[in-house]
Amino acid sequence: MTRKYNFSAGPAALPDEVLKQAQEEMSDWQRKGLSIMEMSHRSDEFVSVAEQAEQDLRDLMQIPTNYKVLFLQGGATSQFAMLPMNLLRGHSAADYINTGIWSKKAIAEASRYCDVNIVATTESDKFCSAPTQEDLVLNPNAAYVHYTSNETIGGVQFDYVPQTGDVPLVVDMSSDILSQPIDVNQFGLIYAGAQKNIGPAGLTVVIVRDNLLGNPLAATPSMYDYKVHAEAGSMHNTPPTFAWYLAGLVFKWLKAKGGVETLAAINLRKAAKLYAAIDQSDFYGNPVAIRNRSIMNVPFTLADARLENAFLSQAEAAGLVNLQGHRSVGGMRASLYNAVPEAAVDALIEFMVQFEKENA
Amino acid sequence: MTRKYNFSAGPAALPDEVLKQAQEEMSDWQRKGLSIMEMSHRSDEFVSVAEQAEQDLRDLMQIPTNYKVLFLQGGATSQFAMLPMNLLRGHSAADYINTGIWSKKAIAEASRYCDVNIVATTESDKFCSAPTQEDLVLNPNAAYVHYTSNETIGGVQFDYVPQTGDVPLVVDMSSDILSQPIDVNQFGLIYAGAQKNIGPAGLTVVIVRDNLLGNPLAATPSMYDYKVHAEAGSMHNTPPTFAWYLAGLVFKWLKAKGGVETLAAINLRKAAKLYAAIDQSDFYGNPVAIRNRSIMNVPFTLADARLENAFLSQAEAAGLVNLQGHRSVGGMRASLYNAVPEAAVDALIEFMVQFEKENA
Repeated sequence: MTRKYNFSAGPAALPDEVLKQAQEEMSDWQRKGLSIMEMSHRSDEFVSVAEQAEQDLRDLMQIPTNYKVLFLQGGATSQFAMLPMNLLRGHSAADYINTGIWSKKAIAEASRYCDVNIVATTESDKFCSAPTQEDLVLNPNAAYVHYTSNETIGGVQFDYVPQTGDVPLVVDMSSDILSQPIDVNQFGLIYAGAQKNIGPAGLTVVIVRDNLLGNPLAATPSMYDYKVHAEAGSMHNTPPTFAWYLAGLVFKWLKAKGGVETLAAINLRKAAKLYAAIDQSDFYGNPVAIRNRSIMNVPFTLADARLENAFLSQAEAAGLVNLQGHRSVGGMRASLYNAVPEAAVDALIEFMVQFEKENA
Repeated sequence: MTRKYNFSAGPAALPDEVLKQAQEEMSDWQRKGLSIMEMSHRSDEFVSVAEQAEQDLRDLMQIPTNYKVLFLQGGATSQFAMLPMNLLRGHSAADYINTGIWSKKAIAEASRYCDVNIVATTESDKFCSAPTQEDLVLNPNAAYVHYTSNETIGGVQFDYVPQTGDVPLVVDMSSDILSQPIDVNQFGLIYAGAQKNIGPAGLTVVIVRDNLLGNPLAATPSMYDYKVHAEAGSMHNTPPTFAWYLAGLVFKWLKAKGGVETLAAINLRKAAKLYAAIDQSDFYGNPVAIRNRSIMNVPFTLADARLENAFLSQAEAAGLVNLQGHRSVGGMRASLYNAVPEAAVDALIEFMVQFEKENA
């Protein structure tokens, strides 16, 4: 077996060690004679897996006890509706910051349930930056303020946490959760699709302050009511048990690696190297404002776009895969999530230098 | 490794061969150097897996071309809301048949969106039977008629498909899909959580006639709109890729076994043996009307309930696991899904005979 270096934006690379453990115990978990997939979610075995995963995530992110941690289905796209359905709480409007494609999707869905006030947008900048705190024109009567901490497609990341006073701050952290330390107390609700930095697709993690629960819109389906899930320990119905188990293995791996602080240092180093390689050359380019360059998703272009196909096919032949940019923007993109080793970035840079030499 | 005989009601047993293949290619799918979990859902590789799974399911169930097959998240519990949200289409009422715990959950959620007319209930019979066609008092103006073809907890299965004239028939087939041949044309919509007869938890299959799509209630979240998923090939957002892949392996396994007809013959034989063993003894009992005895879930009691713990612990020691009845009803339950081999049933019967000898 030769494992490739995988720069996929999501579903994305998982740690080799995690896949190896999942493989070893696939048919026989902990000598129980069953796969973890074949066990009732209410069995002692699975409940212990589920509780340990939650505890490990709480440890990794230092999640305070007045926050619930939910393991849900449906992806961030389901959250786009669940947010207004649960968090309006009698308000008629919510504030949204628009920094790109994922912000826009969140805004479009929320607009079906309330008045959406765009408190800042970088669309005129072709979404190549994030607004500053001073740019935000906040509505003190908003139910909440929503932003996307890292735009996976544009490669734009906030370099600060917006300050919103008494209005709860809500963040789509799908592509940068667990990549660097944060203070959970600054947020009312954090959500993340698992398939980037947590585990396989089909799991969504929600971290929500408990005083925001319990006042959903009348038409809210039971499965869209955070409180229903919180009270049932995310087992209102059968949860995605294998994805939850695998996320738990990733959390254990993160702890063994030294936790989020250690990973953050590695992530910063990985990203800095790659941006330096891009900046040192006129052959490659990245359009994002320096202060907002994502440490997780690095889009880049070739000065001569006609070379893109050659770049991608030669990279693939060199064992560097899934470097194609999102279909909506083109170009290249290297996603550098926690599970992408520094050696992968080194190999990519080496390839880029060589490709430039041969094609410049 | 010693694999146990697993009678879990769900998440449930998976075929040994399927787990073995998933294990072998866990870190390196088809020599691509990546896990199938680590690939974009829009990659050629995953799209081929997804399309093949759909085609194999279409072949197995002979699904007509005017039906869409959707691979969704959220379980049957999400369907309980999606049904009225999508299928009312201007109607104000829907018909529901009540045969037990799962029917009741579907009814409770639908009641939040429309007038629910209970067209028949077997509650006075303690849910130990299903109503006959003659028992059904149907409303010709109902948006649809809903029933649960097999009550997983009660072990009650319909022995016919209700005839509803021009009103679309909707069925929760979570625990008996693919267990016996059906004529899809008799249904407007079929749904099933995967974690019993299809694959791992976290995937829900919906088979829906295309003329029922496209008129959801105003408050319906995008992710609850069947048409949105149908038009996107179930990739409106990132689907649960590993669960979809694993379901595909199960469909291939079913085809290799000879398809649904072959499995149905085995399933009937497995169930008949176990019911015969129960009926031949006063030591064991099953309260369900003979014509409605489920071929998938066989609940049974001991004449002396004080022996239940001994039965369960000795069964487990003999390699027969997850025989405890649902916490809401107690007693024992053996779920005999497709992946439970006939040898497991033989071993269970042998154990039951021996246990009776020692304890009667």
